[in-house]
Amino acid sequence: MGLIVQKFGGSSVADADKIRNVARIITETYRRGHNVVAVLSAQGDTTDDLIAKAAEINPKASKREMDMLLSTGEQISCSLCAMAIEAMGYPVVSLTGWQAGMKTNSAYSNARIKRIGPERILAELDRRSIVIVTGFQGVNKYDDITTLGRGGSDTSAVALAAALHADLCQIYTDVDGVYTADPRRVKGARKLDEITYDEMLELASLGAQVLHNRSVEMAKRYNVNLEVLSSFSGQPGTKVKEVTKNMEKVYVSGVAKDTDIARVAIIGLADEPGIAFKIFSMLGKENINVDIILQSIGRDQTKDISFTVGHGDMERVRELLEERKSALHYDHVDIVDTVAKISIVGAGMVNNAGVASQMFEALYSAGVNINMISTSEIKISVLVNKNEADRAVQAIHDRFFSQFGSHN
Amino acid sequence: MGLIVQKFGGSSVADADKIRNVARIITETYRRGHNVVAVLSAQGDTTDDLIAKAAEINPKASKREMDMLLSTGEQISCSLCAMAIEAMGYPVVSLTGWQAGMKTNSAYSNARIKRIGPERILAELDRRSIVIVTGFQGVNKYDDITTLGRGGSDTSAVALAAALHADLCQIYTDVDGVYTADPRRVKGARKLDEITYDEMLELASLGAQVLHNRSVEMAKRYNVNLEVLSSFSGQPGTKVKEVTKNMEKVYVSGVAKDTDIARVAIIGLADEPGIAFKIFSMLGKENINVDIILQSIGRDQTKDISFTVGHGDMERVRELLEERKSALHYDHVDIVDTVAKISIVGAGMVNNAGVASQMFEALYSAGVNINMISTSEIKISVLVNKNEADRAVQAIHDRFFSQFGSHN
Repeated sequence: MGLIVQKFGGSSVADADKIRNVARIITETYRRGHNVVAVLSAQGDTTDDLIAKAAEINPKASKREMDMLLSTGEQISCSLCAMAIEAMGYPVVSLTGWQAGMKTNSAYSNARIKRIGPERILAELDRRSIVIVTGFQGVNKYDDITTLGRGGSDTSAVALAAALHADLCQIYTDVDGVYTADPRRVKGARKLDEITYDEMLELASLGAQVLHNRSVEMAKRYNVNLEVLSSFSGQPGTKVKEVTKNMEKVYVSGVAKDTDIARVAIIGLADEPGIAFKIFSMLGKENINVDIILQSIGRDQTKDISFTVGHGDMERVRELLEERKSALHYDHVDIVDTVAKISIVGAGMVNNAGVASQMFEALYSAGVNINMISTSEIKISVLVNKNEADRAVQAIHDRFFSQFGSHN
Repeated sequence: MGLIVQKFGGSSVADADKIRNVARIITETYRRGHNVVAVLSAQGDTTDDLIAKAAEINPKASKREMDMLLSTGEQISCSLCAMAIEAMGYPVVSLTGWQAGMKTNSAYSNARIKRIGPERILAELDRRSIVIVTGFQGVNKYDDITTLGRGGSDTSAVALAAALHADLCQIYTDVDGVYTADPRRVKGARKLDEITYDEMLELASLGAQVLHNRSVEMAKRYNVNLEVLSSFSGQPGTKVKEVTKNMEKVYVSGVAKDTDIARVAIIGLADEPGIAFKIFSMLGKENINVDIILQSIGRDQTKDISFTVGHGDMERVRELLEERKSALHYDHVDIVDTVAKISIVGAGMVNNAGVASQMFEALYSAGVNINMISTSEIKISVLVNKNEADRAVQAIHDRFFSQFGSHN
């Protein structure tokens, strides 16, 4: 008997039948003797409907009032789920963020959990109640309702699992685990039984949107055992933990594609010290995240600096560079969004120098041209043309994961 | 400059345009220099929609979870109204029942307000914010959300007005005041400028559903000045207070009709002491309210007892009497719902014995037969056949309120 935190996303509670399905998963876990705390998102479209209502009245509504409005979504899904569990004859109570002791800072719409006062939840568990908690929300020091922003319900679940010292935090979603590549697009993509926090972080930041990075970071920090699994299939999912059994054997955990990026090239910069610092500190101040950076010597005592940014930041970067043109002394800027970033991730690759060359060889064999390269201890990323991205992913995946492949 | 509590019902906040209209009323009051606390109900059909969602999942859901679900309705309307006020450029904050310090007992779905901790509201008013508070809800000693049952938002508003020592509590609704009779049905019905708490209580309990009795009782107890007015017309409404200017002159304030009743007759009861006590204590234990009671001597040492109950209790009364037939020793029971109760209400009539006879004369002239009669200090009720009810109301109203009538 242990304590299990289970999180169910918006698609898992979208209608009455799906809520009943979630209630079944929760009560089956409970019947096996576990204590269960379930964290729920708002039903499917509820949040969008509420946002539309607000936009009709005030498109520039304060974030404080938006959080007041949006937090009702989880309150509805949680009370409905509790009713479904009541109908099955189990003891249950639903709790809002403030009732569950989720204390956050005051950054409305993007709040951070500061601490959890778990007394109420523990009291309910002591009397063997199932506890349903609204994800995505908390309360600040003024007793105002806050929401946690993107991936908030995952973060709520992991934070609760950490505070309650849960044995396991299960993230139920509409996919049945973490795959070696996007199974809808890559032939032969396989579900992973296990993956490390760091690998999961790299995959999440690369566009494999199974788990939000904030929640994985928190799980790593507090050593919360995660499992990603489907609320529909009933199959085991993927375990996310600090050390996986197969770490020595498997070099590469997955192949990810990110097409939501743009490549920025600043051409003809004066070759003087501090130029790179000026550019990237300017972007950092604007909260623009920069990935793959390449610096090359140009002609006539100049150099070029290229980097990638999220597609949403593209126009802002263009403006910023334009404003600083005289200070930065460059010739011109070239920005394209016809590129994709393809990455392989694996905790095992740090000790295997050959992995990078195998990746490049696969791309060469498939006739895919590489624009830029970036490596970290557990990741190798390359920039390719967007229209070659799917071919690139398949070629790399075949190289590392095909049954007849050379090494995994 | 004073403090005004304004309450807006579900029809007043039914859509974006109506919410903007409410925001205008609130901000106009604020611009005149007043502090404003506005209490809102849920939007038009929200509560019904939520009830339908719950019924689909669990028709016998616990009241605790129903309150958790239903309380979201006011949270939505209040945050939307705050956004509308923000758009007009005024400082505003919306507060849920628990944020506003509305402490109730634990009678989920029908909770009573125990006390109000007004610190947060007072702090917001001190910085000249408009405060929007969710009606109909509070929080019990376990920090669980409760709802106040029928008329709950009126009660929230009056309780807040009492706790904050407000100068006035305005109840905005879809009618523009209290009338001498239902203006949709009675020719010549006139709006009253003023009415006493007691008259309002009698009228409310008689089916003139402008204000719920709980809120009027509370207003009387804490001497809260009420005004009932329309959120659409912009006209002055009806003031409800302890003593009205015209009390000496006006005998009768209004004529009310209640068709939602049934008449129960228990025929052939043994003429022994304690029979009436047995019957009415039995009904009292079942929370069945009994009105007009008539006891008459029957034949052969028996007596008959007749009384009226709400239509919703009719079948339950039939069952209860059936179950106790042997203990009560009666011959048979006769229950009909083809009756209506017509009442006149007026604080002035206690000193005017002639009022009753004028009412009976009006009914006689109109050819309406009277089944039963009941009187209190400020009310005279008669039971008539339902199909003669409208004619009865018109005749009585003409008698007391026509410009050519004899005395008002």
